[in-house]
Amino acid sequence: MIIAKPLTVEAFAPYGDVIEAINDPSFMINAGKCGRFHDLANTDFEGGKAGISLAHSAPYALPLSLTMIERHPLGSQMFMPLDNAPFLVVVSDGPTATPKVFITNGAQGINYFRGTWHGVLTPLNAPQNFLIVDRIGTGSNLEEHFFDTAFLVDLPNG
Amino acid sequence: MIIAKPLTVEAFAPYGDVIEAINDPSFMINAGKCGRFHDLANTDFEGGKAGISLAHSAPYALPLSLTMIERHPLGSQMFMPLDNAPFLVVVSDGPTATPKVFITNGAQGINYFRGTWHGVLTPLNAPQNFLIVDRIGTGSNLEEHFFDTAFLVDLPNG
Repeated sequence: MIIAKPLTVEAFAPYGDVIEAINDPSFMINAGKCGRFHDLANTDFEGGKAGISLAHSAPYALPLSLTMIERHPLGSQMFMPLDNAPFLVVVSDGPTATPKVFITNGAQGINYFRGTWHGVLTPLNAPQNFLIVDRIGTGSNLEEHFFDTAFLVDLPNG
Repeated sequence: MIIAKPLTVEAFAPYGDVIEAINDPSFMINAGKCGRFHDLANTDFEGGKAGISLAHSAPYALPLSLTMIERHPLGSQMFMPLDNAPFLVVVSDGPTATPKVFITNGAQGINYFRGTWHGVLTPLNAPQNFLIVDRIGTGSNLEEHFFDTAFLVDLPNG
């Protein structure tokens, strides 16, 4: 059983960016009315455009049976929750490694670096909406790996 | 007095994209668990990267005194609300035109086309958080126009 850990910038650093307004804004805009937390993601869209999409995902039951991971060799991929609800974030050092699993705090989004192995969008308690920023273009941008034996994943208090 | 109109894809089409999950998903992903509303914005980032930032903006009082508009000659600019609350969207055909003002339905985001004259982020009732996708790079990417006389803006029931 893999127990999810709280998502932090430090723990997630090898795999991607945490999209979160922490500490003070980078700078103020709009005559001081608005704080901007600037340039939070290492975006990378080889040979394509930075596309903006929405996703509406059904929830998954716990313990989660993690059957596969995937990666996108040509681009980074950002998911920002629009419902203020936590979701599971699965990343991996590769097909033969044990995946690492994080649980967001509800406000956090994530940006997977180009080529990072990761799980699919995994809401838990209810359907959830996300904004996606990823590469849109031609070419083969998806690799999938299916585990011989699924990993079981749960929350600390699951 | 300019009275804001409900934001619709049709009315906003000359100025930008409405980021909204309407009708059926473009296609299903993740073994049928997730609907993707695909490629909703005309992103355009001349000589820079598609940057991801967050904004936390103080609210504005109604009737709004609209004193200025701005535009970004080098890039499109997307704002997605993270709090499910409406905000005012101001666009204009140019410094001498009367601005057009829309009110979102709470779930809608917007993407201003590169070069479109628009107002600043304008939450109304409470501070509001947004995800921003815009051009990050060097060069002069901001033009501002200050009106000789401010326009007053209100909601239909304001």
